[in-house]
Amino acid sequence: MKFNNRNITIGKNVTIGKNVRIGDDTVIYDNVSIGDNTIICNNCLLGEPLNDYYHNKYYENPKLIIGANSLIRSHCIFYAGSSFGDYLQTGHRVMIREHTQAGSHCSFGSSTDIQGECVIGNYVRLHSLVNIGQGSEIGDYVFISPYTVLTNDPTPPSDTISGVKVGNYSQITASCVMLPGAVIGEHCMVAAHSTVGGTFEDYSFIGGSPAKRLCDIRKAPIFNDITKKRQYPWPYNFSRNMPWDGLGYDEWLKENEQTKDI
Amino acid sequence: MKFNNRNITIGKNVTIGKNVRIGDDTVIYDNVSIGDNTIICNNCLLGEPLNDYYHNKYYENPKLIIGANSLIRSHCIFYAGSSFGDYLQTGHRVMIREHTQAGSHCSFGSSTDIQGECVIGNYVRLHSLVNIGQGSEIGDYVFISPYTVLTNDPTPPSDTISGVKVGNYSQITASCVMLPGAVIGEHCMVAAHSTVGGTFEDYSFIGGSPAKRLCDIRKAPIFNDITKKRQYPWPYNFSRNMPWDGLGYDEWLKENEQTKDI
Amino acid sequence: MKFNNRNITIGKNVTIGKNVRIGDDTVIYDNVSIGDNTIICNNCLLGEPLNDYYHNKYYENPKLIIGANSLIRSHCIFYAGSSFGDYLQTGHRVMIREHTQAGSHCSFGSSTDIQGECVIGNYVRLHSLVNIGQGSEIGDYVFISPYTVLTNDPTPPSDTISGVKVGNYSQITASCVMLPGAVIGEHCMVAAHSTVGGTFEDYSFIGGSPAKRLCDIRKAPIFNDITKKRQYPWPYNFSRNMPWDGLGYDEWLKENEQTKDI
Repeated sequence: MKFNNRNITIGKNVTIGKNVRIGDDTVIYDNVSIGDNTIICNNCLLGEPLNDYYHNKYYENPKLIIGANSLIRSHCIFYAGSSFGDYLQTGHRVMIREHTQAGSHCSFGSSTDIQGECVIGNYVRLHSLVNIGQGSEIGDYVFISPYTVLTNDPTPPSDTISGVKVGNYSQITASCVMLPGAVIGEHCMVAAHSTVGGTFEDYSFIGGSPAKRLCDIRKAPIFNDITKKRQYPWPYNFSRNMPWDGLGYDEWLKENEQTKDI
Repeated sequence: MKFNNRNITIGKNVTIGKNVRIGDDTVIYDNVSIGDNTIICNNCLLGEPLNDYYHNKYYENPKLIIGANSLIRSHCIFYAGSSFGDYLQTGHRVMIREHTQAGSHCSFGSSTDIQGECVIGNYVRLHSLVNIGQGSEIGDYVFISPYTVLTNDPTPPSDTISGVKVGNYSQITASCVMLPGAVIGEHCMVAAHSTVGGTFEDYSFIGGSPAKRLCDIRKAPIFNDITKKRQYPWPYNFSRNMPWDGLGYDEWLKENEQTKDI
Repeated sequence: MKFNNRNITIGKNVTIGKNVRIGDDTVIYDNVSIGDNTIICNNCLLGEPLNDYYHNKYYENPKLIIGANSLIRSHCIFYAGSSFGDYLQTGHRVMIREHTQAGSHCSFGSSTDIQGECVIGNYVRLHSLVNIGQGSEIGDYVFISPYTVLTNDPTPPSDTISGVKVGNYSQITASCVMLPGAVIGEHCMVAAHSTVGGTFEDYSFIGGSPAKRLCDIRKAPIFNDITKKRQYPWPYNFSRNMPWDGLGYDEWLKENEQTKDI
């Protein structure tokens, strides 16, 4: 792969791993750390400074940590003060504000907007144009579809932040609004265009505006087109880029001593 | 703050105030005026020319006026022919087309898209990813949440533009569709994910698809988590960046002779 | 029109027609073809390489074909492996992935995101912030409004792609979710904020969540504000940028032997 090494700006105390490649017109601010083999494409801003930067001449940029083996596509903006595990993949124009902590193997689609002050697990896939409000807590193996927003202000405008919690393995499909303080358990499925408030137990199939628990997702008559088996719990039918790929979900659960009463 | 003064392009008849700072790779076209102390970050296009520019060699760029003490973050595009009061703050990648007139102290979140031919008051806060159609009229102290769209064509496709009007102090929360010609009064609140057509009086709590007036927002049992008082009218509970900060809303109303029968 | 010819990068086997103009900081990768008189504005990436590019040193970029007389505004990203007819117009920051085939006279609004592996007809207008999933098939003279998403995975997450089909002359208004496999006929109209699954015949007026056929759109009492005639079928009331402009829809249909029982 060829970048032109043109107009790259690199600040102070920047740590760049082995075999890292950086695209043209990219700016890396002070105190950024990039892991081995990571590719940063054209026109990115990494370690974008916080508000204080514009007014305080003693401003010190907080650390931004980007893991190894990651691919950050063009025009992304990552604020200072966040950390990302290894194997991050992004689309273009992803915007991530300060104090975001994300695990490894995440994938964030183009134009997704993460407002910071949030925690994101491992193997999380946010599609294009997802909006994650401050205070959100997202588990592992979660998928969120385009135009879904995780809100956080129960009484707008106010200074109260009541983030949304999404349990491991849950799916939130397109154009949903997750209301402030909504909590959904593990292995839940939220139908498209729902408006979700309140608390939902594990394995809930959730839908509507306002959303209700429709049934246990394991009992929903939804079948995988290829395997012809019941689709949910989905890890039995889908393993691409997941840690149980090649091993099978049950086998992987056993090896990881994460056995659950599925 | 440090920019590199790299690849800045500045057109003719550009007026730049005192202490203005301009980021790398930013282009300022002809006839742009920037007020004192304003910061324009990297990779912005200010005074982006209108369609005619590409075809008419006698094209003259209309004036773009950006007030003083503003902060325009990276990758924003402001078309020629608009004006903005002082203390504008933007996120990244904001897109604003021609013939937008905005007051002072506005804040426009990342990726918000203002389609032009519209009027926006003072102290208006558009969060990320708001879409404001042509013909919109937005009062003062209005907040609009992500993914909300103000539409304008009652019979698509057509050449009729019937913009949305939003009264002072009103709140439109996430993922709402404001239908062409919708009018909401002052101090209204629109619940998330609503579809709003028609006219609503002051202090309406509005929700649903199609949206109805649910009750008088002053009587809604919604309490501020910090003050424990009824949240609405919200200016009694929230003053950050508002002109009544430090003074109290009642006191400020008196001083401004804007007394209302709240 | 003036570009500065600054920092333009052009790959191998790039074919550039007569009178093409290219903005600053634009990158054109290998095997891109651009038709006569086309304007590419600042900061675009054309022929953006596919995933394999980052890992395979024998990677060969698939061809990207952009027709003549087109205007691609700043910050657009077009992946390699797609083709576009003449007279394409885009807003800013449009993102189009590989294996998109679009006809002539299309218009794609700012921040619209086309996920690739899809077919788009002639005279199609996608407004700002439309999301077109893989597997979509869009006919001619189709208009889609902001925040509408064409989804494709019936059992998320899975490897099944069941794209949406939209017939000629149909209108999908703001903030709709088109569910996987939805099929709408010709001359249909989808009301704002609908959730549409299943199959709908020609001339359906479709609305709600879940959406139903409300009536025959030709019988809906919706009148054009200027002509005062029934708005639908809309080509009798709207001709801007359409091939029947100046001729009339009936006359044009006759000339094109596309007579239909309207």
